[in-house]
Amino acid sequence: MANDMMRADAQDNRRRILAAAEKVYGSGEDASTERVAELAHVGIATVFRHFPTKAALLEAVLVTRLERLREQAQALLGAADPGAALTGFFAHLVADAAGKLAIAGALQASGGDGTDAERASYALHAAVGELLTRAQEAGAVRADLGLDEFYALLIGASRGVAAMDLDETARDRMLDVVFAGLRPVDGEPRTS
Amino acid sequence: MANDMMRADAQDNRRRILAAAEKVYGSGEDASTERVAELAHVGIATVFRHFPTKAALLEAVLVTRLERLREQAQALLGAADPGAALTGFFAHLVADAAGKLAIAGALQASGGDGTDAERASYALHAAVGELLTRAQEAGAVRADLGLDEFYALLIGASRGVAAMDLDETARDRMLDVVFAGLRPVDGEPRTS
Repeated sequence: MANDMMRADAQDNRRRILAAAEKVYGSGEDASTERVAELAHVGIATVFRHFPTKAALLEAVLVTRLERLREQAQALLGAADPGAALTGFFAHLVADAAGKLAIAGALQASGGDGTDAERASYALHAAVGELLTRAQEAGAVRADLGLDEFYALLIGASRGVAAMDLDETARDRMLDVVFAGLRPVDGEPRTS
Repeated sequence: MANDMMRADAQDNRRRILAAAEKVYGSGEDASTERVAELAHVGIATVFRHFPTKAALLEAVLVTRLERLREQAQALLGAADPGAALTGFFAHLVADAAGKLAIAGALQASGGDGTDAERASYALHAAVGELLTRAQEAGAVRADLGLDEFYALLIGASRGVAAMDLDETARDRMLDVVFAGLRPVDGEPRTS
């Protein structure tokens, strides 16, 4: 019983540290682990007990974020409008990208190897592939498009928005171009 | 006369060093300055006389490349088909991007500040803006698209291709999506 409570406490601390770290590093702040501890209302020793290095903390933040995105993608697999589900998720990923790129950059700078994050990336990639297939089967997206080039568009849109520091209106216009281009070419047979 | 010949020789050496450096660093090779000297058939002292640091050499390579692209963009301003000129140049930039990204990465790693390259980038940006305006005036590209989001697409497509390591076929399919999306929406009034 006491052990269960301790475990629950530890998990709660871990969650709060991750949330604080995501907030700090996702905004591009080059913050110390002390700042994360302060925001999470835990002692610095507690942070280091959960995450022995800054790289370990950053990687855990990135993995959490990628897993959350994968869960969101999977939740959309049953959507009534697979085309809208795909473009909606695309827009969500692009809007989310600045924080993700900041965390990935900090992870790289901290010397982390990113193996776990890479695994989480693959899982997200696979989930997006399923969303793409559904949208193509529904005739909402051109059937000749492969996942690799779709993913290149997704990564590219994210990095392009960050590189040009686009505001929301410009970002929406950019996405509108991509989404218009994804639609089946006239006369193309449906795959379903 | 002797002076003129020496100057011509020096310029020839400079050109050969730049071409060799572009070849070496553009392929992502983390090569030494000695390797560049060898490829350019000049002594290492000659390389250092022209480019005192590796960062200076890399920046000169990048500037040369950006200026060449800007000249190509400007040469296309008189094209009979402004829409094809814009998409053709877009495809050219994306195909050219892997080398450019490799050189820019090496420049950053060498500690170069990139001020000259930034200036050359702005000039290219402006030339692409003129190509976009021509294509919009010709009714080949949707009129509501601003240069910032167009440039985000361009940068994004380049980085997406590099990140996913797309082959030429996949790259063409990706570009096809972008180009289809650039076309005016049905019923949109022409700007010209």
